Amino acid sequence: MTLPDVVQAALDAVPRWDGHYLTGLEPPAGGTAALLDLATVVRGNHVELARLRPLAGKTFAGMFFDPSLRTRMSMSVACAKLGAHFVDLEPGSGLWTLEFEDEAVMDAVSAEHVREAAAVLGRYVDALGLRAFPTRGQWETERTQPVHSAFAAHAGVPVVNLEGPFAHPCQGLADALTMRDLLGEPRGRKMVFTWAPHPKQLPMAVANSGIWAGASLGMDVVLTHPEGFELDAEALSAAAGLADANGGSFTVTNDRNEAFQGADIVYAKSWGAVTGSASTAGGHADAFSSLKGKWLVTEADLRRGAPARFLHCLPVRRNVVVADEVLDGELSAVLDQAENRLWGQAALLLALLGR
Amino acid sequence: MTLPDVVQAALDAVPRWDGHYLTGLEPPAGGTAALLDLATVVRGNHVELARLRPLAGKTFAGMFFDPSLRTRMSMSVACAKLGAHFVDLEPGSGLWTLEFEDEAVMDAVSAEHVREAAAVLGRYVDALGLRAFPTRGQWETERTQPVHSAFAAHAGVPVVNLEGPFAHPCQGLADALTMRDLLGEPRGRKMVFTWAPHPKQLPMAVANSGIWAGASLGMDVVLTHPEGFELDAEALSAAAGLADANGGSFTVTNDRNEAFQGADIVYAKSWGAVTGSASTAGGHADAFSSLKGKWLVTEADLRRGAPARFLHCLPVRRNVVVADEVLDGELSAVLDQAENRLWGQAALLLALLGR
Amino acid sequence: MTLPDVVQAALDAVPRWDGHYLTGLEPPAGGTAALLDLATVVRGNHVELARLRPLAGKTFAGMFFDPSLRTRMSMSVACAKLGAHFVDLEPGSGLWTLEFEDEAVMDAVSAEHVREAAAVLGRYVDALGLRAFPTRGQWETERTQPVHSAFAAHAGVPVVNLEGPFAHPCQGLADALTMRDLLGEPRGRKMVFTWAPHPKQLPMAVANSGIWAGASLGMDVVLTHPEGFELDAEALSAAAGLADANGGSFTVTNDRNEAFQGADIVYAKSWGAVTGSASTAGGHADAFSSLKGKWLVTEADLRRGAPARFLHCLPVRRNVVVADEVLDGELSAVLDQAENRLWGQAALLLALLGR
Repeated sequence: MTLPDVVQAALDAVPRWDGHYLTGLEPPAGGTAALLDLATVVRGNHVELARLRPLAGKTFAGMFFDPSLRTRMSMSVACAKLGAHFVDLEPGSGLWTLEFEDEAVMDAVSAEHVREAAAVLGRYVDALGLRAFPTRGQWETERTQPVHSAFAAHAGVPVVNLEGPFAHPCQGLADALTMRDLLGEPRGRKMVFTWAPHPKQLPMAVANSGIWAGASLGMDVVLTHPEGFELDAEALSAAAGLADANGGSFTVTNDRNEAFQGADIVYAKSWGAVTGSASTAGGHADAFSSLKGKWLVTEADLRRGAPARFLHCLPVRRNVVVADEVLDGELSAVLDQAENRLWGQAALLLALLGR
Repeated sequence: MTLPDVVQAALDAVPRWDGHYLTGLEPPAGGTAALLDLATVVRGNHVELARLRPLAGKTFAGMFFDPSLRTRMSMSVACAKLGAHFVDLEPGSGLWTLEFEDEAVMDAVSAEHVREAAAVLGRYVDALGLRAFPTRGQWETERTQPVHSAFAAHAGVPVVNLEGPFAHPCQGLADALTMRDLLGEPRGRKMVFTWAPHPKQLPMAVANSGIWAGASLGMDVVLTHPEGFELDAEALSAAAGLADANGGSFTVTNDRNEAFQGADIVYAKSWGAVTGSASTAGGHADAFSSLKGKWLVTEADLRRGAPARFLHCLPVRRNVVVADEVLDGELSAVLDQAENRLWGQAALLLALLGR
Repeated sequence: MTLPDVVQAALDAVPRWDGHYLTGLEPPAGGTAALLDLATVVRGNHVELARLRPLAGKTFAGMFFDPSLRTRMSMSVACAKLGAHFVDLEPGSGLWTLEFEDEAVMDAVSAEHVREAAAVLGRYVDALGLRAFPTRGQWETERTQPVHSAFAAHAGVPVVNLEGPFAHPCQGLADALTMRDLLGEPRGRKMVFTWAPHPKQLPMAVANSGIWAGASLGMDVVLTHPEGFELDAEALSAAAGLADANGGSFTVTNDRNEAFQGADIVYAKSWGAVTGSASTAGGHADAFSSLKGKWLVTEADLRRGAPARFLHCLPVRRNVVVADEVLDGELSAVLDQAENRLWGQAALLLALLGR
């Protein structure tokens, strides 16, 4: 099986790493840029690739401990377009309950230890995807993405994070691809990543991966959120490091108005506080009540200068996170962004399994 | 990729339309007959088609808001036989809850608007199937198949109705194919579509599509049901129009005995009343109690003249809708009819995605 | 489509039978050995087979009335590696409830009779897999595997048991393949199949298929369990017959210490009693309480002579069935055994559908 030359060249340009993709920060220098180049080439050659089936006989299994529409669909279709087999696993729905503790005496509910579950899956599949959101209240544990780490430790095959407590790297790849598509050369352009109101306390993974995406493109990234909704310190530090390494900048402000000035990209997403008064259910409800409306993204927000394009990972609460006028208007790029999940992940699959 | 000549010719003969298949009445004149011809040719060449994979790289997603065995299986297998990828989606099971109202302020349960959900799916898949039964009590809304319409409005790809409140067009295609298989030339032959008893208030979609199937073949279609179980006026009018255009006839009677005289085909199916006293749960229970037994299809019913062949869409309640003797006897064609779901849908997929 | 010569030769060597695989005892003499040879060859040629897709256009549907991880995954991947389409069905989750009684008047919950459900599935798929555990309390019925039998009677295509009340033949195939891999020539070597403690009353299917696997390889099989946990008499008789026919032996003892002497293979698995005092929930709880620890497999158990290799079908309760030290040590072969599910089933699929 021979790949089209342009695809083979783009694939060869992606540096190799140990294979796990848990934060998206794993590829060595230049790796993310090379994945984006590959994604673009795969997108332009997908009809031929579907006939060639470069991943024939390879299986990718996605384990969804939490709900998913886009990730599930885009990974399934990415596999199909490369000839790979996608298996959709929902633990709890027809599967055994897993034990994660070492040295457990398993005489209670859990029927299988992650050591066996991961290792067995690794014997059947060529890569394993995992979606597992944080369980609220133990951020110091959750931030290490313990479910993902356990599977990565025992699976024996690459483990891809399909959204965890700390990162959503496949989303970040799509975000970066979309900003390249929209801006051509993103270096030196301004990306605003803004907190948004939401009735629920959501994970912060998308925010972390989003600011890393902008920073890795060398953009001037401005993160804005209300006081009390600070992101994890390590995530902020990683964003600053990426900006520095790629010729961009990274700043944080609670002043939403200042942040939006001169933005080329406005990326909105809600997340729940992990410490402080807003981190409790009641505190979040109070914060939502006082901040909704004030942090809703409107068309006027985008048109303060040269119009900014609007991004959101979806699903999005209309008229809570962003006004109808934005999503239904010409400045929204959320559908292109969602589509790019498919192409970014196809590139990742090819890099992990296609050589 | 080159199709076998006979398949290509049959595909070329299918007229094009906008692509949605929500009632089955969308194809222009001659379209349904051409789809049936194509179905027959696909059935005869399926082994070669499976090797050629004419729909390689194409994805069909089925969203099942309600249970399904035949539809799910037959669509999945139809895709496999053409090299397409089938994705099975069950909203509510691992997926977000959808909002359908325009201008909603989404601060309650629904996490995603159909505008985004449909449009994003349309970026990943090449056609989208939907099963959504009516929610009882608002027939004037339900008859418009609002869930299907919403997805069709926003998906940007063909939407196929996998059973809605008003129509089950894939079933109708299989019904017509089966009657052509059984009768050779159905024109001028008599099809009886009879109401049947059932403890539950079922949708009327199969009945509508069934009478349209017979009428589109130019058959003399007689619909029979107890008083109070009238089908929707628009469905009746469409049946009359199809009969008229194709050289057949369409009549309705409450006289079951009269209806069965000289039947070539007896198609049984229960449905619940949408207006009147039998439309309430209690009214339906009373009607079921007084009508069961009287409207059960027996072998004697089929042998009043030249024996009629028996059709039912399945699943069927044995000894409530039809006697064991019929289903286990030589006059039943329900398994051929079920199998034809596969071939009818394969033809539809090829027409929608294969050119 | 031409298979690689070595695969074709191994396939030709498998004798044909009626196609059902409900106990694993169906293949004629030499059949199981030929399937194992084929499995080995498929394992060695899987990359080429995935490109050739010998089962293109064929569909295998797995109906899971009970939970599954390994079986589901290994069958799905086996299909993918041969180009077949795998459909995962979970009755109750988006499917109708089935009626199994003949002559039932179906006016209650069940919406479809197995006669139609099986026959319709048989029109769509090329083989049907079924997982259905026993429902406790009617062993005389359950031991006949009534759900499997009903589907086999009506499906019109081969039915493969993906674990029933009496047998788990796909597991047995993997067990035999693994013992051949480990021992080279298993004839004359000692296999101990030992009962193990477990908080739940589990089916005995794995135990039956496990002792048959060893006996069919001509091994000296010793079954050991506490009093009151006797396997079904017919299963024991089948094991003795297989041992006799293949030059091995089969004995049963309640003396665990004696059993383990000189073992080459120790296979542990829990099952619940089907008669006597331990067959009630309370009796099982008492037995678990008094036997746990005593019947836990430790490394010392394996090292009484030449070290024995450890097998278990998984999922396994760590430190209840077997100590961590065994599973994490060099004597465990449970991952190879789990992987062999894939290759055994791939061979079975090829034998059933590939000629």
